[in-house]
Amino acid sequence: MIFAKVIGTVVSSQKDPNLNGKKLLLCKEVDHEGKPLKSYHVAVDAVQAGEGNFVLLSYGSSARMTEETKNAPIDAVIIAIIDDVEVTHVLRGDGAAVQRGGAAARASRKS
Amino acid sequence: MIFAKVIGTVVSSQKDPNLNGKKLLLCKEVDHEGKPLKSYHVAVDAVQAGEGNFVLLSYGSSARMTEETKNAPIDAVIIAIIDDVEVTHVLRGDGAAVQRGGAAARASRKS
Amino acid sequence: MIFAKVIGTVVSSQKDPNLNGKKLLLCKEVDHEGKPLKSYHVAVDAVQAGEGNFVLLSYGSSARMTEETKNAPIDAVIIAIIDDVEVTHVLRGDGAAVQRGGAAARASRKS
Amino acid sequence: MIFAKVIGTVVSSQKDPNLNGKKLLLCKEVDHEGKPLKSYHVAVDAVQAGEGNFVLLSYGSSARMTEETKNAPIDAVIIAIIDDVEVTHVLRGDGAAVQRGGAAARASRKS
Amino acid sequence: MIFAKVIGTVVSSQKDPNLNGKKLLLCKEVDHEGKPLKSYHVAVDAVQAGEGNFVLLSYGSSARMTEETKNAPIDAVIIAIIDDVEVTHVLRGDGAAVQRGGAAARASRKS
Repeated sequence: MIFAKVIGTVVSSQKDPNLNGKKLLLCKEVDHEGKPLKSYHVAVDAVQAGEGNFVLLSYGSSARMTEETKNAPIDAVIIAIIDDVEVTHVLRGDGAAVQRGGAAARASRKS
Repeated sequence: MIFAKVIGTVVSSQKDPNLNGKKLLLCKEVDHEGKPLKSYHVAVDAVQAGEGNFVLLSYGSSARMTEETKNAPIDAVIIAIIDDVEVTHVLRGDGAAVQRGGAAARASRKS
Repeated sequence: MIFAKVIGTVVSSQKDPNLNGKKLLLCKEVDHEGKPLKSYHVAVDAVQAGEGNFVLLSYGSSARMTEETKNAPIDAVIIAIIDDVEVTHVLRGDGAAVQRGGAAARASRKS
Repeated sequence: MIFAKVIGTVVSSQKDPNLNGKKLLLCKEVDHEGKPLKSYHVAVDAVQAGEGNFVLLSYGSSARMTEETKNAPIDAVIIAIIDDVEVTHVLRGDGAAVQRGGAAARASRKS
Repeated sequence: MIFAKVIGTVVSSQKDPNLNGKKLLLCKEVDHEGKPLKSYHVAVDAVQAGEGNFVLLSYGSSARMTEETKNAPIDAVIIAIIDDVEVTHVLRGDGAAVQRGGAAARASRKS
């Protein structure tokens, strides 16, 4: 799954019947700290996510595994609103994973 | 799902029987404002999309979940014609999502 | 689906039994005008495509939806030989889709 | 499958019911020597992986093929903790695969 | 499917039970001439491939369609050892596919 922020909504009146009543949200992909990356995705909301929320997106056939999305022709769904990303390790240049201290671990937290 | 604009049609006489009668549309990937990105895709039309339309594409096994495309060997389908993309938030450099005003929110709207 | 040109064949004697009798073709991804892009793909042929042909490739689980490929462990199939790609619209820098004239529309046609 | 290192955890209270009780781990993609690449992924843990571990990630519908993840709307799962990657061959510029000696073969090993 | 060379093995003792007894091979993606590209993949071997072999990789749900891999949470499988890639056509800058002579056609062959 990847991180995204919900930054808007997509409105369509002429669409596949399986999309009726589903909320289509405009999502900007972000990194684990919430910083914007390049991609935009449109995802169906399965968790009552609101605009501005930091969320988790799931892709492909897995996007049809929620009650909200089963049998729909959609390939992306919001499966969680993220409360916290706790980074416990950093990778050195040689690939070793080094544990971060408790305070630093919370430095990248976005509520 | 991603955004695209329909810019043409693909004609084929020698094809898999499951494609008979299906409209194959040439789609240029665009961003949420309709600005062209690099990729081209060929998608089956499931919503009577016309050339020039701003549409939503779904990929992978999900592309077979419409009446038009079930059991067909296709991996991309047009599932909606987009009326409006309303951008309600912008992301600052630090990743914070800031709400846009009502007027600004409609600045990127493409009808 | 994406565009490709068939530029060769792949020969293998030691392979999964489900590949027996299937033609494995070397495909170079191209754009809608037939100009070469970077990727190479190996695809199973489901439409009697020949070397040099301009074809349509389908990926993923959809690649198993032809008579030729069902239940085979393959992720790419040629589903159509392309006769013509008719480009009817061009995208301006601001994203507007502008209709092309009849003659121009056929300028990128590759037979 | 690709390599990753587990560098943190993702906390969410508002999520799809199928995610209840599942551990969501923040994974940084790495190469076969454990050196960090660009992508971040969030994956469900199916093998009691701990933070700092060098692991194997599986994607797409395959991510739902573990006891831990079946029917969940997730597209990435940790399927193994890696003890050793033994590189036995190197590729020359012309593409020939040349066997490495026993000692060199273990040079890139990360425990 | 894509081309790869098998350059090593991946060892794991703590893994999903469905991986027991399966050989996990380190594969470097290569082009049709066997020249190394950037990506590394870990794939399950379904054809008794050995290290140093030039092979064909299949991805996604299709990777579960071999006897060796059915129901396993894996997204990549080696489905063939390649004997020969015969390039019969080259693409000119304008996209035309031009037939190569018999001798030249075999120039890129890798056994």
